[in-house]
Amino acid sequence: MASIAPSVHIQRAERVAHFEQDVWSIFTPLAIECQAVNLGQGFMNFPPPDFVVEAAREALLRNDCNQYSHPKGRPRLRNALAKSYSPLFGRTLNPETEIVVSAGANEGIFAIFAAYLDEGSEVILMEPFFDQYISNITMNGGVPVYCPIRPKGDATKNMAASEWKIDIKELESKITPRSKIIVLNTPHNPIGKVFSREELEEIGALAAKHNLLIISDEVYDRLYFNPQNHERIATLNGLWERTITVGSGGKTFGTTGWRIGWLIGPEALIEPALAAQTRIIFCVNSPLQEAIAIGFEQAEERGFFGSQVAAYEHKREKLLAVFRELGLPCTIPEGSYFILVNTEKIQVPSDYKFPDLLWQRPKDFRTCYWMAKEIGVCAIPPSEFYSKENQALAENFARFAFCKTEETLDAAAERLLKMKPFIK
Amino acid sequence: MASIAPSVHIQRAERVAHFEQDVWSIFTPLAIECQAVNLGQGFMNFPPPDFVVEAAREALLRNDCNQYSHPKGRPRLRNALAKSYSPLFGRTLNPETEIVVSAGANEGIFAIFAAYLDEGSEVILMEPFFDQYISNITMNGGVPVYCPIRPKGDATKNMAASEWKIDIKELESKITPRSKIIVLNTPHNPIGKVFSREELEEIGALAAKHNLLIISDEVYDRLYFNPQNHERIATLNGLWERTITVGSGGKTFGTTGWRIGWLIGPEALIEPALAAQTRIIFCVNSPLQEAIAIGFEQAEERGFFGSQVAAYEHKREKLLAVFRELGLPCTIPEGSYFILVNTEKIQVPSDYKFPDLLWQRPKDFRTCYWMAKEIGVCAIPPSEFYSKENQALAENFARFAFCKTEETLDAAAERLLKMKPFIK
Repeated sequence: MASIAPSVHIQRAERVAHFEQDVWSIFTPLAIECQAVNLGQGFMNFPPPDFVVEAAREALLRNDCNQYSHPKGRPRLRNALAKSYSPLFGRTLNPETEIVVSAGANEGIFAIFAAYLDEGSEVILMEPFFDQYISNITMNGGVPVYCPIRPKGDATKNMAASEWKIDIKELESKITPRSKIIVLNTPHNPIGKVFSREELEEIGALAAKHNLLIISDEVYDRLYFNPQNHERIATLNGLWERTITVGSGGKTFGTTGWRIGWLIGPEALIEPALAAQTRIIFCVNSPLQEAIAIGFEQAEERGFFGSQVAAYEHKREKLLAVFRELGLPCTIPEGSYFILVNTEKIQVPSDYKFPDLLWQRPKDFRTCYWMAKEIGVCAIPPSEFYSKENQALAENFARFAFCKTEETLDAAAERLLKMKPFIK
Repeated sequence: MASIAPSVHIQRAERVAHFEQDVWSIFTPLAIECQAVNLGQGFMNFPPPDFVVEAAREALLRNDCNQYSHPKGRPRLRNALAKSYSPLFGRTLNPETEIVVSAGANEGIFAIFAAYLDEGSEVILMEPFFDQYISNITMNGGVPVYCPIRPKGDATKNMAASEWKIDIKELESKITPRSKIIVLNTPHNPIGKVFSREELEEIGALAAKHNLLIISDEVYDRLYFNPQNHERIATLNGLWERTITVGSGGKTFGTTGWRIGWLIGPEALIEPALAAQTRIIFCVNSPLQEAIAIGFEQAEERGFFGSQVAAYEHKREKLLAVFRELGLPCTIPEGSYFILVNTEKIQVPSDYKFPDLLWQRPKDFRTCYWMAKEIGVCAIPPSEFYSKENQALAENFARFAFCKTEETLDAAAERLLKMKPFIK
């Protein structure tokens, strides 16, 4: 006789109990549903460079590339990273002790938090932030502490991303005896700001004064635009010893689905992150590591990074021209592949019917929803990248990704121009 | 004027402070150093099947396979898993809610622990265990609790893996009000035991009585040998609702370096694990997911799983014959690709000089060290898979992997036979 299965309830852990529905799971299905041109999520809808794809296809024919890699990463990739990054860091990087390959930058950052945060350790974040930081911190017992980067230019006109500023006194006011880590992101998503040497020196001095570990999230480090120059905080005086720099194969070679990232820093800081990562994932997928290694080996002679930047600059200009035409002020990005657009002048019809869900979110969620539904272009509401208390700072912005084909950007432009009657 | 960098000390987190050097970082370099035939780590030194490699090479030519996947996993893989596993689970699996693709089985298990363990939650493990379980548990605040599986046969003769038994009363005695999860591994590494239906029913009844979540680690579920039949605890009466079953593309298709695994279970259990995983890695690498999907789609018609098992049975026999010749009793594995060999009769010269490191470890570390150095074959000391208090249970065993080419196994055989003078 079959017994009836008892109703089973297994309680989830506190660390995952309070996750909210994220912005991606609202806007990605929405974009599909209303066949919007998707400038939301920052993935390339064009293929990676042939030489990198071909390297992956070749790697698959070698059995050592199909089996476990060393938890540190494949020697060929660590060597290629050391060769490419040593001049950029102004020091000879040791591929055995100062570089770890991670399963995407995201997992690398998670591993750092796992390696350094104890219950109640505080992490200083600048707003807007990459949304995964928050759960990466709280899942490891940490407490995020926020300091906004504020637009200091005239909001009614285009402004340079460099006009978004951190108030260093405000930043220092967030530091307590429990502060353990400060996270920097440059080039910055979604502002497109490339932090100046002076700004980095100020942030670095605070970190040194309060003995903070610096995580420098530099996943867009190959994507910054003339004449801006990307500076690395780890190269500033005395800061190498307290900085882990995070990089991304997905951003560097247009392969967001390969999940190859890396951490660079002094052995004393890298070793605990590697210890954590080895337990979390054991190792990173092998064939795509090999391909990224070959990508770095060949990038220079092929002039790849330069031509990639030129292509992105062209895409940036194309999208900026649309907003110029519409009279919507933009933050001109100096790096990354996002544009923050000031949406204040868009007049969404006051009787427009929004799903209830969106009334629980700041205004930018509704602006972006309306734009996806009625204009047919999907952007991301950046209040998702702010703490609750500071979300209002983002309610008049939308983030558009330009890591898309010319055809996609042209289609987006055509649709966006239909917004003209709604702009006051 | 350059200032002197202050000496920086950033304290690592408690959760990573007590990791010991793992067995792999001792024996893998040792095998290389003394050019031993490496039957230590369980990776294939032969290529994955052509049709799976070719599927990966094709996937790389499609841009959607080079960009982010859905955090749940690519639809094609979830659909293929649902189709392949539904008959094995005796139910129609929902690929939207009951299957999640993970970055290898290891990360999937880590995500389950992250999703369910609070500070002090206890996890019941059977010894010997997969060594990563321990850190996966402790990094998420949990406490491992151990119950040994004991060999009940005559240790001086070959015995069936089924003669290793869990004492169900002893197992129940380990359960406390803080017990949250019980981990089962079948087919079992390193014993090669395939748990019988009766054993699973007893373990399942305990889990139901004490409201435990069952993690059933079935990564070797396509690798069991006639006439043994692999039973799934999730198919037993009432246990589906409390079980997450873990699978592995690496074991199934010989691609340990692709880092594709999966979790199967009821929506209520899968959802928190997915929530955790999405924050840890965001998503799994895309092109190799697509290839594993195609692997499952074609495996049946190609008769792949059957021919793979036949090949492994042949390898198993080849290695067992060597130990028979040497007079060393073995546990005959019913599944997985490992053989536990009883090394008690091996007489390592009493004046043999071991590195100090090895004197801090149980005897099996020294036996395996000597074998690698003097005989030229590397095996793994299984005391690594036991808690400190029960390590003595393993000191007369060594684990040999037979997921190796015929040539490698022949070379190992030739060398192992040189051990004869050292066997009493």
